[in-house]
Amino acid sequence: METLGATVWLTGLSGSGKTTIAHKLLKVLRARGLKVEILDGDVVRTNLSKGLGFSKEDRDTNIRRIGFVADLLSRNGIVAITAAISPYRSVRGEVRENTERFIEVFVDAPLEVCESRDVKGMYAKARRGEIKGFTGIDDPYEVPAAAEVVCHTERETVDESVEKILAALQARGHIPSAYAADGERTVC
Amino acid sequence: METLGATVWLTGLSGSGKTTIAHKLLKVLRARGLKVEILDGDVVRTNLSKGLGFSKEDRDTNIRRIGFVADLLSRNGIVAITAAISPYRSVRGEVRENTERFIEVFVDAPLEVCESRDVKGMYAKARRGEIKGFTGIDDPYEVPAAAEVVCHTERETVDESVEKILAALQARGHIPSAYAADGERTVC
Repeated sequence: METLGATVWLTGLSGSGKTTIAHKLLKVLRARGLKVEILDGDVVRTNLSKGLGFSKEDRDTNIRRIGFVADLLSRNGIVAITAAISPYRSVRGEVRENTERFIEVFVDAPLEVCESRDVKGMYAKARRGEIKGFTGIDDPYEVPAAAEVVCHTERETVDESVEKILAALQARGHIPSAYAADGERTVC
Repeated sequence: METLGATVWLTGLSGSGKTTIAHKLLKVLRARGLKVEILDGDVVRTNLSKGLGFSKEDRDTNIRRIGFVADLLSRNGIVAITAAISPYRSVRGEVRENTERFIEVFVDAPLEVCESRDVKGMYAKARRGEIKGFTGIDDPYEVPAAAEVVCHTERETVDESVEKILAALQARGHIPSAYAADGERTVC
């Protein structure tokens, strides 16, 4: 099946649910016969950004690289789903400007919820001062001003979040409108 | 048009003709309705590998990044053409192992020919010692042991080189066999 492709840019705190949403979205889109790739923050840091740290400059460089690859994919008909904290508004805006069919998804969960999940034990380390410059603790997260989709993962199921993203993609014609009926189930 | 995608990995000295072949190959494949991207060494160094130098380690990291992106593209049906010196055999082999439908193209021109072309004036600088670690001058180039295609750009036209690559892609079914007749014009 031929599609235009798109970049679905998930941004949010560590533990907000980006990776979970990304994988469910991938599964749903692939089941529909679409081409999809996830550019996960951790995977990208291994494969494209080894050696970069977590200063603003290094984070921005990492985000630009993800944006470069996402654009390569999406302009060739692939849905590129990125799942990286991407805390800074300006570089997210820069990527948006350089990428066709860009959908920003703010995965919004309160810090205390993310911290209580603490899947990787990172918040505990950050609170103990063993990690410096951890987003949300001692490094900023700049909330998106105009994301196309906001997912409230502390009170939505993963399926509900995914359906909001599907609806946004369908409404813009980035994925086939034949599936538009799915959008009706969206709970916002 | 749907294809399997492939990675066409051009390797050779600076000035051997990689970029020229890459752009002609892109033009021909796009004219046939295929999806094609060039991952040019210089562009990649700007967008994915800023800060990396030309030590063996840094060169290998750069090549792994190009390989990572080429695989993302080619496994989604795009023909990814890479044009980077990629002087080391082992990392080229590593990329080959990790990439489906990998075609290695040795763009083989004698050093003296490349040096006489010296499009960017780099060889002159390397000979004067203003650039250190320049491939072919004071840094090694390891000739491919079993490239799928060898282009002798000092005695072939660009079109002849491109046709050899097209024939190799067609013979393996990586691009539609409907165009197989083109392969007959190949001059080897």
